[in-house]
Amino acid sequence: MDSVTVFAPATVANLGPGFDVLGVAVEGMGDVVTARRLDGRAGVVVLEQVEGDGGRLPRDPTTNTAGIAARATLDLLGVEEAGVALALHKGLPLNSGLGSSGASAAAACWAVNALFGAPLSRTELLPAALEAEARVSGWHADNVAPALLGGFVLIHSYAPLDVIRLPVPEDLIFVLALPDCELPTQQARRVLPKTISLRDHVANSGHLAALVAGICTGNARLLGRAVQDQIVEPARASLIPGFARVKQAAIEAGALGCSISGAGPTLFAVTDDEATAQRVAEAMRAAFAEAGLTSHTHIGRVDREGARQIPPPSREETPD
Amino acid sequence: MDSVTVFAPATVANLGPGFDVLGVAVEGMGDVVTARRLDGRAGVVVLEQVEGDGGRLPRDPTTNTAGIAARATLDLLGVEEAGVALALHKGLPLNSGLGSSGASAAAACWAVNALFGAPLSRTELLPAALEAEARVSGWHADNVAPALLGGFVLIHSYAPLDVIRLPVPEDLIFVLALPDCELPTQQARRVLPKTISLRDHVANSGHLAALVAGICTGNARLLGRAVQDQIVEPARASLIPGFARVKQAAIEAGALGCSISGAGPTLFAVTDDEATAQRVAEAMRAAFAEAGLTSHTHIGRVDREGARQIPPPSREETPD
Repeated sequence: MDSVTVFAPATVANLGPGFDVLGVAVEGMGDVVTARRLDGRAGVVVLEQVEGDGGRLPRDPTTNTAGIAARATLDLLGVEEAGVALALHKGLPLNSGLGSSGASAAAACWAVNALFGAPLSRTELLPAALEAEARVSGWHADNVAPALLGGFVLIHSYAPLDVIRLPVPEDLIFVLALPDCELPTQQARRVLPKTISLRDHVANSGHLAALVAGICTGNARLLGRAVQDQIVEPARASLIPGFARVKQAAIEAGALGCSISGAGPTLFAVTDDEATAQRVAEAMRAAFAEAGLTSHTHIGRVDREGARQIPPPSREETPD
Repeated sequence: MDSVTVFAPATVANLGPGFDVLGVAVEGMGDVVTARRLDGRAGVVVLEQVEGDGGRLPRDPTTNTAGIAARATLDLLGVEEAGVALALHKGLPLNSGLGSSGASAAAACWAVNALFGAPLSRTELLPAALEAEARVSGWHADNVAPALLGGFVLIHSYAPLDVIRLPVPEDLIFVLALPDCELPTQQARRVLPKTISLRDHVANSGHLAALVAGICTGNARLLGRAVQDQIVEPARASLIPGFARVKQAAIEAGALGCSISGAGPTLFAVTDDEATAQRVAEAMRAAFAEAGLTSHTHIGRVDREGARQIPPPSREETPD
């Protein structure tokens, strides 16, 4: 194979009480990476094209997340005879809380792996994707793991890296509301408390345990009711204009639960019903508007597959 | 019915990372309460007999956990025409970390409820049992809820009280090692940190989420591997002579996981194999002995039923 094109989905990390340990891939939005084999250019990674980012991402493959991930994947594969040229098409907005850098990293890993015969599993590729994510956005795997593996993914531990795929509740639907503003992960991390009370730890433990139980037993209502967070959400809420109003609007419109997607500013809500999803999306958009922010919404089920090969773009440009 | 006898099982709370939110009932050990109707003595609770406690528990029904629970259950039932006389047989050692007070409370609630036709469900009785536990041992439901409901029980939240029964993995076996020493819950609570780092919170979150996933998906190996705790276990380990040695012995003998049962000093280990359970029990007893403590061990599966009526004791004494 000379060229491989891979899609990796948007991800919702944290999911309320699952800060840095839980994430899920959502259908219908994502990044696309095309990797082309560069024979005779051992170990070289070239970033030929980046589009959809308004020219803002680095074009240097040693600082672009797709380039770093490709480089790490080549190392993991032990490829010595060739390099890769990458084209990155951003489908995910930057700094939106939807795992944009993680999706690029996951897509690049899977593309490079597929280009060389796909000898590694998604789980085996995870360290390469995490390395890229860590350099760009911090040492957390709750976006990059579901972008790569699909479904709900739990990060049991980082050292050793122990990642667990959870079952996916059948009827679950995500509503994403993306306000037209950005919130860099680094900024969202600065407002986090360094220490928390044991009382808040216990409260969040109850919510997290119930959330995982809801996921694993296919109980969307329990899952939604467990989307409660006394630690991270209160710290970040003020960074998102209209947060309280939008969340309340989602719940009043019938959402089973609502919180911040990853570091924000995107909010997610969950439901088990299509018509409710439409109403929730409309209510969240209206509430952001009341707070003076335009926004757009996306409704999607869980993406169970994660990074996967797709047909190449119809008018692929591959300059040398 | 004039008299009802009820058994409620031992419980292992916390289970490592599930401090104050998770507990499980274990077969083969427990407390027994007999409740007898006192017609014409509206609202009166008499504690006729307490045995198996070495004379240490209060005989005053307003301070004994079984008496308090019986009183609260009468209130919950709205019984106006009669009172109850209780006989409590302690099968569980005091201050052992096996939910002794919770078992007495659960048994008393179910016995009084059954005496008056069992109009309330186990879940409906929980507030009465929790009221008794709170007055004796602190406001936590992770012993009393599984003692009453059976199986694994998750306390999602305390206000409002939201309690969730989890599935029970088929092959799971508990090994309990009870050293011949006591550790009052109040003392074990005093050593807890009031604040914890966000980093420890995230680490424990990963373990708790994996523990719940292991429980809900019937994966005993995942469950065991998730029995890790960076917050409570380190604080309490020094209160239990030989803790590190006994835990290590359990793991080396093949246990899938091992930690402190409730507030201790009992340690629990989990396995999915009978022969391993025997080896683990022997190894834990030997390790306690090396630390200078005699101990005894108990092997039991999960008690799925919780508090339930049993035949009355053969030589029941019911003085008036």
